[in-house]
Amino acid sequence: MITISQRGLQMPASPIRKLVPYAEAAKEKGTKVYHLNIGQPDIETPRECLDAVKNCDITVLEYSHSAGNESYRKKLVEYYAKNNITVSANEIIVTTGGSEAILFGFMACMDPGDEIIIPEPFYANYNGFAVQADVKVIAIGSSIESGFALPPIDDFEKAITPRTKAIMLCNPNNPTGYLYSTGELEILKEIVIKHNLFLFADEAYREFCYEGTHTSAMTLVGAESNVILMDTISKRYSACGGRIGAFRTKNKEVLNAAMKFAQARLSPPFYAQVLGEAAVDLPDNYFDTTKAEYKLRRDTIVKRLNAMPGVFCPNPGGAFYAMARLPIDDSDQFCQWLLESFQHNGSTVMLAPATGFYSTAGAGKNEVRLAYVLNVSSINKAMDCLAVALKIYPGKTN
Amino acid sequence: MITISQRGLQMPASPIRKLVPYAEAAKEKGTKVYHLNIGQPDIETPRECLDAVKNCDITVLEYSHSAGNESYRKKLVEYYAKNNITVSANEIIVTTGGSEAILFGFMACMDPGDEIIIPEPFYANYNGFAVQADVKVIAIGSSIESGFALPPIDDFEKAITPRTKAIMLCNPNNPTGYLYSTGELEILKEIVIKHNLFLFADEAYREFCYEGTHTSAMTLVGAESNVILMDTISKRYSACGGRIGAFRTKNKEVLNAAMKFAQARLSPPFYAQVLGEAAVDLPDNYFDTTKAEYKLRRDTIVKRLNAMPGVFCPNPGGAFYAMARLPIDDSDQFCQWLLESFQHNGSTVMLAPATGFYSTAGAGKNEVRLAYVLNVSSINKAMDCLAVALKIYPGKTN
Repeated sequence: MITISQRGLQMPASPIRKLVPYAEAAKEKGTKVYHLNIGQPDIETPRECLDAVKNCDITVLEYSHSAGNESYRKKLVEYYAKNNITVSANEIIVTTGGSEAILFGFMACMDPGDEIIIPEPFYANYNGFAVQADVKVIAIGSSIESGFALPPIDDFEKAITPRTKAIMLCNPNNPTGYLYSTGELEILKEIVIKHNLFLFADEAYREFCYEGTHTSAMTLVGAESNVILMDTISKRYSACGGRIGAFRTKNKEVLNAAMKFAQARLSPPFYAQVLGEAAVDLPDNYFDTTKAEYKLRRDTIVKRLNAMPGVFCPNPGGAFYAMARLPIDDSDQFCQWLLESFQHNGSTVMLAPATGFYSTAGAGKNEVRLAYVLNVSSINKAMDCLAVALKIYPGKTN
Repeated sequence: MITISQRGLQMPASPIRKLVPYAEAAKEKGTKVYHLNIGQPDIETPRECLDAVKNCDITVLEYSHSAGNESYRKKLVEYYAKNNITVSANEIIVTTGGSEAILFGFMACMDPGDEIIIPEPFYANYNGFAVQADVKVIAIGSSIESGFALPPIDDFEKAITPRTKAIMLCNPNNPTGYLYSTGELEILKEIVIKHNLFLFADEAYREFCYEGTHTSAMTLVGAESNVILMDTISKRYSACGGRIGAFRTKNKEVLNAAMKFAQARLSPPFYAQVLGEAAVDLPDNYFDTTKAEYKLRRDTIVKRLNAMPGVFCPNPGGAFYAMARLPIDDSDQFCQWLLESFQHNGSTVMLAPATGFYSTAGAGKNEVRLAYVLNVSSINKAMDCLAVALKIYPGKTN
């Protein structure tokens, strides 16, 4: 009998995608499903970016440089400069999505059995990359009451062991939408310097901040050897399918190691690099419209949620996610029930159970994540569904 | 002091790319460098494929399905059927290049410390994926005298331990160009069935066979649970920069595990899937021209090499590589010397030292790999350089 690996068995299935069959069944029955379950923006990819691909005249689709096209890396230097991040083209490795940047960071900085501390709830796929790199995620809790602010410094100190190698922070946060303050980043800086840890910074949603401004971990003075930026153009330019990200660090040893991983997989995809290069030349006010749209959606969804009896949704400062506490027994069952047994005026809503974003067993059972990636009209209809559903759900708790 | 991982330190740098600085220096001096060192074809990407990308009208560059676009997977079913490989769309995971298919296979089938047997010389990046998956490559030697035919069955049997989980075969082979016979594949089938091993089949060069026909490991009756196909469109359609490959197996457990790895990285790149989909509709005689061109180049390079005193180059049956034994002391030094200290009529040639393709220390020191990815005229000029170089190289051995 031939057997697969333990790693293959332990690899988590995507908690966001596991409800897909129920959504498909609902659609087959003729029910309209409002998708607030996944971070696929509906915002159009900028025409200039799509045109750059259309106008790309090549005769041979050659490998890029393993670190990405030099012309694109030079453009990225401009992009980062606009965001007050100083970087040279030689300090950037263009990756296949932010996903690959995360994997390179995990592999280059941690060995099997090492530990990485991540405030929970956190982006579920970090678990998958941890399994691939054979490292252990140590979750420390942030609470919905505080809007998912950074856990107290003592919680970090208590979680640190001789195997701890890194702390990971997604800012603004997926799934909570929390925007970390400069003060919180300074606290993290002190911890990583004191304990010789890496600070992995996932800043995929950098541009989408609605309260205050974004502080990049790359600007933390004194932590240059500690900080590794894992970036992506996916959400920024609504270009998720391009699969282009970037790995950035001032730590030369880490960069050299990551470059070897980059060489093994030869090169990042060519076309989306062309798209990303064009994106840097978008007008400086490009994000204003997108941000205004997301802010309107956020304001709508948060107001609607908090108006429902027993529901609590802290106001997220960034990204395009909101976490809400619902008066329900079990968010996995509730989200499945929404698709399987509920409809309101021929419609229902698909949400992400928060359990998939926690590694502590039982946590998040009365929370869901909502991605506000639909327009305000659709969000309102989706909230109509949710309001009715919460009144009749058999497992409601109030 | 913050330290990177042992894995990051152990990760091998690309042996093919390490001579690049010397090539750049030669070019700066005004020397023309004939690149026979890397498998980047000069053949044009089919116009129909490039046009499919140009004509692609989308408004949002969305994530693909994690297994790849359904329309592309359905097209791939047609492609495989033409190659006598029966497969359904649900048994295919579209990957980011063949590289990712290899990584998924290693991760899904092997645990840290497990062993994989590979006849050497082999594609150097297998080492990199082995480091990432924390598995051990056990090399068994094939010899230039036999043209790098499959090593005797006893060599496999002797190499198998309780930790052995897989055998890997690249067919036709990179770097040797050897085309394995149906008989050799049947021998491997018996071994993997007897010992419950996986058979990883890298068939990137399937179409490029000049002596006899290709037997896919996917057609081995009785080994359906053992065989995993790691495929790519890179060489087939001269589309290396697209980064599209495929992971194929009839083993449902392995497929399910690989799918979880695919979900973690969300999706393969969109544009090159469009390109790959168009490629399946190329006329059936598309490969005839390309094959005829590669065969002419092979005939030229092999004849020229064997005409040089002390040089031996077996006739490769497929792919676009040839391995040659040269009358030299050290192929790494020789290849560097060609770039650093040699020119003939203002030109030189860049080759890949074979040492990078062996994991046995000291093996391949008098062998080089030549990729015949230039036209016949350039190949002849490159061979002129090599012939002169071998007469004057200070470390020549005859």
